[in-house]
Order: sequence, then structure tokens, then C-alpha cells
Amino acid sequence: MIYKYPDNFKPHNEFIIFFLLFTLHFLVFIQYHTLYQQKMPKELTTRAEDYSQWYNDLVIKAELAENSAVRGCMVIKPYGYAIWEKMQSALDRMFKNTGHSNAYFPLFIPKSFFTREASHVKGFAKECAIVTHYRLKNNEKTGEIIVDKTARLEEELIIRPTSETIIWHTYKNWIQSYRDLPILINQWANVVRWEMRTRLFLRTAEFLWQEGHTAHETKEEAVEETLRILNLYADFAENWMGLPVIKGKKTESERFAGAIDTYAIEALMQDGKALQSGTSHFLGQNFAKAFDVQFTNRQGKLDWVWATSWGVSTRLMGALIMGHSDDNGLILPPRLAPVQVIIIPIYQGTQELGEIGTTALKLKKSLEDNGISVKYDDRDTYKPGWKFTEYEMKGVPVRIAIGPRDIKDKTIEVARRDTLKKITLPQDNIVNRIEKLLGDIQNNLFTKALKFRNQNIFKTDDYQEFKDIIQHKGGFILAHWDGTIETENKIKEETKATIRCIPLDAEQEKGKCIYTGKPSFQKVLFAKAY
Amino acid sequence: MIYKYPDNFKPHNEFIIFFLLFTLHFLVFIQYHTLYQQKMPKELTTRAEDYSQWYNDLVIKAELAENSAVRGCMVIKPYGYAIWEKMQSALDRMFKNTGHSNAYFPLFIPKSFFTREASHVKGFAKECAIVTHYRLKNNEKTGEIIVDKTARLEEELIIRPTSETIIWHTYKNWIQSYRDLPILINQWANVVRWEMRTRLFLRTAEFLWQEGHTAHETKEEAVEETLRILNLYADFAENWMGLPVIKGKKTESERFAGAIDTYAIEALMQDGKALQSGTSHFLGQNFAKAFDVQFTNRQGKLDWVWATSWGVSTRLMGALIMGHSDDNGLILPPRLAPVQVIIIPIYQGTQELGEIGTTALKLKKSLEDNGISVKYDDRDTYKPGWKFTEYEMKGVPVRIAIGPRDIKDKTIEVARRDTLKKITLPQDNIVNRIEKLLGDIQNNLFTKALKFRNQNIFKTDDYQEFKDIIQHKGGFILAHWDGTIETENKIKEETKATIRCIPLDAEQEKGKCIYTGKPSFQKVLFAKAY
Repeated sequence: MIYKYPDNFKPHNEFIIFFLLFTLHFLVFIQYHTLYQQKMPKELTTRAEDYSQWYNDLVIKAELAENSAVRGCMVIKPYGYAIWEKMQSALDRMFKNTGHSNAYFPLFIPKSFFTREASHVKGFAKECAIVTHYRLKNNEKTGEIIVDKTARLEEELIIRPTSETIIWHTYKNWIQSYRDLPILINQWANVVRWEMRTRLFLRTAEFLWQEGHTAHETKEEAVEETLRILNLYADFAENWMGLPVIKGKKTESERFAGAIDTYAIEALMQDGKALQSGTSHFLGQNFAKAFDVQFTNRQGKLDWVWATSWGVSTRLMGALIMGHSDDNGLILPPRLAPVQVIIIPIYQGTQELGEIGTTALKLKKSLEDNGISVKYDDRDTYKPGWKFTEYEMKGVPVRIAIGPRDIKDKTIEVARRDTLKKITLPQDNIVNRIEKLLGDIQNNLFTKALKFRNQNIFKTDDYQEFKDIIQHKGGFILAHWDGTIETENKIKEETKATIRCIPLDAEQEKGKCIYTGKPSFQKVLFAKAY
Repeated sequence: MIYKYPDNFKPHNEFIIFFLLFTLHFLVFIQYHTLYQQKMPKELTTRAEDYSQWYNDLVIKAELAENSAVRGCMVIKPYGYAIWEKMQSALDRMFKNTGHSNAYFPLFIPKSFFTREASHVKGFAKECAIVTHYRLKNNEKTGEIIVDKTARLEEELIIRPTSETIIWHTYKNWIQSYRDLPILINQWANVVRWEMRTRLFLRTAEFLWQEGHTAHETKEEAVEETLRILNLYADFAENWMGLPVIKGKKTESERFAGAIDTYAIEALMQDGKALQSGTSHFLGQNFAKAFDVQFTNRQGKLDWVWATSWGVSTRLMGALIMGHSDDNGLILPPRLAPVQVIIIPIYQGTQELGEIGTTALKLKKSLEDNGISVKYDDRDTYKPGWKFTEYEMKGVPVRIAIGPRDIKDKTIEVARRDTLKKITLPQDNIVNRIEKLLGDIQNNLFTKALKFRNQNIFKTDDYQEFKDIIQHKGGFILAHWDGTIETENKIKEETKATIRCIPLDAEQEKGKCIYTGKPSFQKVLFAKAY
């Protein structure tokens, strides 16, 4: 028997029904995606897989920075910039507490200033952006916008790669007598060094930094200032960033162009490479002589002024990221976290959300009243799981989740980012508990980094072992060195390791250079470096 | 009888005595100058004599800024920069409280970006600094440092005069859907406009500013943001800087290059000239179109993103100086003064100084505990009179002098900078009195400036009177205008007055254009301007 359609049923009705059902499903699908934004949780390349790629992924996915349309220049995104602002604010307070004031000097440096201090120009000439013209015009034939050749500067201007020259030119007019000294000035500014290989935060053509430039009566005072700032930087790295650092003096080949002595703090990254995180230079009288800055000293005699300069930059962001973070994303020390506590409601329906919201906002307020920065994320366009992943990626130190059960039991679920451990806590006395937890996380990050660093400082007197460590383990190596540039260069060529510094706290001990066997009186610190 | 020398006295002894006395006097003289630095009290050209010279003198003598070695670029000195930091901090808080975040975009803008928005490039092309090369080298023959011609950029880079183009190029990747909106970003940065005639703070080739760049779903939301910021700027000008401002819309000819509407706050300086103190631009969809920034709206359709931008700069320093100061120097509103109270000891000998110091430091601490910034100047190298002059020049709002009699009577002498009036107050309950005094000074400066401004807003329907006012009195003039650029230009040519703005609160009233007699519906605000 042949199946017959009912009389009132036309064959294409099936298609219509199918089409309607399809459309309905499609709309539900769209709606769902609209509401919940089911992007897959963000995933990073793991550190074990490819440390370098992990770093790049993290910078992008935690929304810290991205490459711009201008070669080698980055865009620092709001979240990355908020961390930088926290750094700035802490450092700025430390500078002011040690008697420094901020000021601002021009972006441009006349080319002739650059050439005054011979080693300085040598250090920076090969990588500077040069302004030659000051007007654009319409090409009358093509309509294209072109550089107006008639608007050529008499003297080219260099975009400051560092400001010693323009500042010492200025100081000349400010200093006549010892009574005008010391001058203790800092500047927050952008600088440009035309690097060929750039990496977000670590090495960019334009970067943000602070540069201190001080002028003193005596050598002793200038050296004291150089070391004061070195210690200040170490204090900041350890107590704010949670990164242990080794303080030391640079060898001649790594010295700042124009300095007598360069001191640095060196941190160890998780991949066993070192990262120079701040430098403080004793400039002697080099810039005073180059810019003819003399003063009448207390004995009534003319003398050249003594100088220091010192800086840290957005490179610190790179150190912060690589120092602590894991395969889930950024880990921030609480003292530098723009958001210290994230509160996430776990709910179904608006009534539950309302009840949880009341508790969450009360909690938020009491934490904020105690100086803790808190965000309550009650967006209904994202699921809790998505939010968990998101704030892990962004390194928020403490996550609080509140569900309907917590409301009943007067509890909250607290997760710490550093260990990823979760515990359920009673709601009462929660401010004290969270304050203590933030302190614990800050300490734990430092302790963990210190342990890692200490486990990765090796001592050796054997060059073969030295090479093995550098090649297979990474880390710092303390070894004897004969004090010559030649040996330093050969070790670098053969192993890619450089002398990071001559540690200030190293003991004097007789030994033989690991490379030449010549006598040495102190071990120096080697590592491959960023 | 002839006078005889005693036997043991030789004629040249007189010379020796004279010489010794002379030397003694000379040494006392030197010592005196060394100790007390008897520079003459700093003096300014008076405002009546030469207002423009008074301004320049003040900027230099109050140590706010100075011209640098680079044409048109200034050095902002520590005291000037400290005031700018106070401004920044207040504004930054206001931006953050209205939901904005800071970020950082590149200093450089590729030339091709510049040309995308036609009216934008027209506005800025004639005054921009252009980077063409990236390396210097040694001229092998002369040894001179020269630009390496082989290191020429493929595409020239413009130093940002403003950042709409690079930012909207970036936003393109950040915005896909209405869910990515709004974007509310601000940037603190340096910018360069190659101005030919420059004046410290008012018009410099490089200046510091903040530039907000926001992206919105709808026109309404963008217009609302534009006006929100205009109101925020007016709030800042009036309640922090103590400067009354008129809010209004710019005419087409004064509009920002690339904007649909530009709004501005206009302040009146003591010489009767207007100073535009902040601008907020509704950019429509111009930059979204130029940089192809589309988004899926709530209706699922593609649309161009709506934009605003807004900024204030170190020009505000010029407004602050010219708004309040007098022939003795700067007058600072307490809310922006780096030092709000200066304490000066009046003493003879170290014992008196010790007693006064104890009282002064106790007072300083109790003021500081209440959030008041205080400096105690006990330098013995300067006399009290010299210090009085110095801090008057620097505009410190309150001066406290403490002498031996004050110690006995438990009093202090308090002088306020705005009125130069002195009173003697009991030491007890002094924190409250000083707090109240600082509030009074803040209010008084605003009230005084408001009275002056209101006395110098004129209304006229007569062009001859208009010309007389502009020429002889200065100030703002409200007058009818026919709405055409031609008329605006003619009035400008004949009187140097420009339309500062079409005030937002102006009443609608029928009238005739003061120049052409054509119909007008609203008076607009004219003035000569900085």
C-alpha cells in the first residue's frame, strides 16, 4: 500500500516545519552565545613547551600590552598600565622620601649635545630616532602628503634615548656654588632606542621609564647616592615585586655609556635567564666636563660637579611577569595588583543573584574601607567558570566565590592565585583573614622566587662544568674571572653567558680564572640574560 | 713744631694697618654675603607696566619653568612640576571616578595614518616633527657625527601632535560587537606641535597633556560623554584652580581638526584676554570611518563606532598663573599648592632657634597629620625677610612666622598670600584655624576671579562700542552674530577678537548680527585670546 499524505497536508509542509525548527534552534544557539560568550577558556602555550611563546601569549591574553602599527613600539593596555601605575606610585614615593623631586626636560636633544661626551655618543648613536623636518605638505601633482623639504631643521634633533646631555646642559645654569648642590631630580618619561629585535616590555623601541639625575659637591656624596638608589631599587624589587635580586657592579663592557661605574640589580627568571632590572650609575665628572659645569666649592675653589644617573623602566613589567607566573596565566604580588580581590557570584536566576549581591557588596565595602582593592563581577553575560579562568589569567591574587549555599551557611569560598588552593571560610572577621591572606601571598611569592633563585646559583671552578650548567640548567654561576674584557668576550662567544655583575657582597677569595687560569680575587656572577 | 713719627713707627705701617682693616672688612663683607646670600629681593615687572613681561618674569622667578636649548621646548622645573603633579592627581581621580582607565599608545604615528582623516591632516600637517632616520654615524673624513643616510625609514614617522589616528587604528582590533563598548581610555603623554611663536606653558613645541579617547555604540552616548568631560573640566577649573569658566561650543573655524563639535571651557585672564583651558570633542563616526572600525550593534547590524576625544595640557599652568597672581609673584589656590603652609623662624642665635624649632616642628606635625603640606624653613643662610619674599614669589598660601615673643605669648603670626594680611593667633586649636583659612583662601580666589570675570563680561548690539571695549577694556563681549565664517573672520581682522564659544547656557533671543545686521537667535562670546 502506498502511503498517502493527508488531504490537508502538502509535501512542502515538512520543509516548512523543518525550517522553522532549524530557525528556532539557530536562534537559541545565537542567543546562548550572545548571553554567555562561550569563548573557550583562554589557553597559554605551557612554559615547558616554549617559554618564550608562553611569555608572548601571556602578555597578550592577560591584556597587558600588544604590538602597535609602529615597528618595535607597543601599546600598553589598561590592565598592563594599571600595574605600571602601581609601580610608579610606589617608586615615586620612595624617591620623594629620599629627597628627590620630579621635573621634566625636553624630548629632543640637539645632535651637537650628543657628541660632547665621547663614550656616550658611541653607546647611543647607532640606535636613535632622528627628527630632520618639521612640516608636511601636499604634493600638488599627486595630492599625496609628503615631507616638505624646505622645512628642514638646521640641526637634527635626536629623540632622547636617555637625558644626561640635555639635563647637564641645563644644570650648567643652575649651579654656581656648593650652595646650589645637591640637585636631586627625577623624571618620568618616554625614551626611544631603535632596537632591531624587540619583545613586549623587555625590549621595545619606545619605552616608559624614570631617570634620576643628581649633581653633587663631592665624589663620596655621588657614590653614596648611586648606592642609595641601588638599594632602593633592590628594596622595591624584593618588597613590592616579590623578586629577589643580586646587587653588583657591572664590568667595563656592560657599563653605561659615559659612566665611571654602573651598578645593577639582577633577577633570575623561571627559565634560568637573568634579567637586569635597574641600573644606577656613578658618572664621576664626565658630564660636568662635557657640559662645562663647574662650581665654587667650600674652599672657594672651582671644581667640576659630580654626577649620578639611575633608571628603571617598563622592562620591570617583563621581570614581574616572568618572575612568578604559571601556565594558567599571570601571578601578581598583592602590593602591585590593580585588583587584589575578585568576587564572583554563583547563581541561578535573579533572586539568587540579588541575595548574593547584597552579601558581596557588603563584603566589598568592608574590604575597601581597609584599603583593599576589590571588584565584584556580576555580569550575566559570562558564566562563573569563564570568569574564574579570566581572573586567573589576569593574576588577581584572591578570588572569592559566593553561592546560595554560602548565603545559608554564612560562608565564602576563597581561592588564592599563587597556589590555586581553595578553602571555605566563615563570613565573620573576613577582613582580617583576607588582609592576612594577601600578606601571605606577597611573602610566599618572594619566598618561592628566593628558593628558586638560591637553587639556581651554582659555583664552579671548572670550565667544562660551567658550560654544562649554562647549556642544560641555566641559572646564575659564580666563578673566578681574570678581570679582562678579552676573557669575558671569549666566554660570551663560547657559552652566550655574560658577567651579570660583580656582586657587592661577594667574599674576597683567591682563585684562578675559570677560563685562563690567571689569578682572581673574587667570584663574579655569570648568566645568560634577557 | 713738626710732627714726628715715634721711633719704632715706620711710615709704611699705616699702609699695613689700612690694608689689614680693609682685608678684615672685605672678609666680613664676603662672609656676610656667603651667609645671607644678600641677593636683592626678587622683583617682577608689574602687571600695569607690561603684563606679558610680568608673566615671563614670574614663570622664571617663581622657578616654574624655563626655555631649553631646544627651540620652543621648555624645562619644567621641580616647583612647576609639583603643581602639575597636583593637577594630574586631581584630574586622574576624576577620570577614574567616571569609569576611565589609563593606557599608553606610541609616540610615533606613521605618515599614512595621518592622511586618513582629511580635515585632521589639514589641521596638523603644517606643524609636526618628522622622524626620517634611525642612526647616526661618524663621518670618516671629518670625524663629525652625522646622520647615516643609509638608515632612512621606509615610511616617515610623525611625533604625535594628538593620538586619534594611532588610537583608532588600534581600536579596530579591540571592537567587534556592542559588547566591546564603551571603551573609556585616557593617556597622560607628551605631544609635539611645531609652533613658531612659543611662550612658556601657554604655547610650546612639546607639551604635556592628557588625551581621552572613547568609543561608543550610539551618537547619544558619545555626545553625553563629550559633555560629561566638559563639565568635569569646568568642575576642575572652578573647584581646584579657582578659575570661573564659561562652557560653550566652538564655531566651525575653531573646531578640532576632525571633530563634528568641539566644546571648550574659556577663562578670563587679568589682562582681559581669554584662555581656552580645555576642550572636549564629539568626533561622530569620522575616525571610525577613516580607520574602518565597525561593530555589530544590538540589532545585529554593522555600524561605525561613535567617538569622543578630550584634553587639557600644561597650558593650564599658564591659566593658573595668570588667573590669580599679583606683582609680588604667584598666588596658588591651596588645593593645588605643593606647599600649603610655610613656617619661618625669626630668631637671633642658636638657643632661640632651638626653642622656636621645637614649637614649629610640633605645629608642622599636627598640620601634616591633618593632610596639610607644610615646610619649615630654618636655613641659617637666608634672612627671614629674604624668605618672606621668596615664598610670596612662589605663591605659598599661608605663611607662619614664629619669633621669641610668640614663644612667650604662645602665639604665631599668620599671613595669607592672597590678601597679604597678617594676624596674630593663639597656638591652641591652630589646626582648625589653618584648615579654615586654607578653605577661605581657596574660596576667596574663586570669588575674586568670578567678580572680575563678571565685571568684564559686556553685552552690546553696537559694533563701534564692541570695538571700543575690545581695544580699551578687554574682557568678554556677548554679541549677536549671523553664524557665518565670513563675518567671524572680518570681526577678527578688524578687532583681533575671536568667537571664544557659543555659550551653552545662553538664552535664545532674537537679534541682529553686530557686524552684518542679519538675523541671529543667540549672543555668542567674543574676546581676544591667548
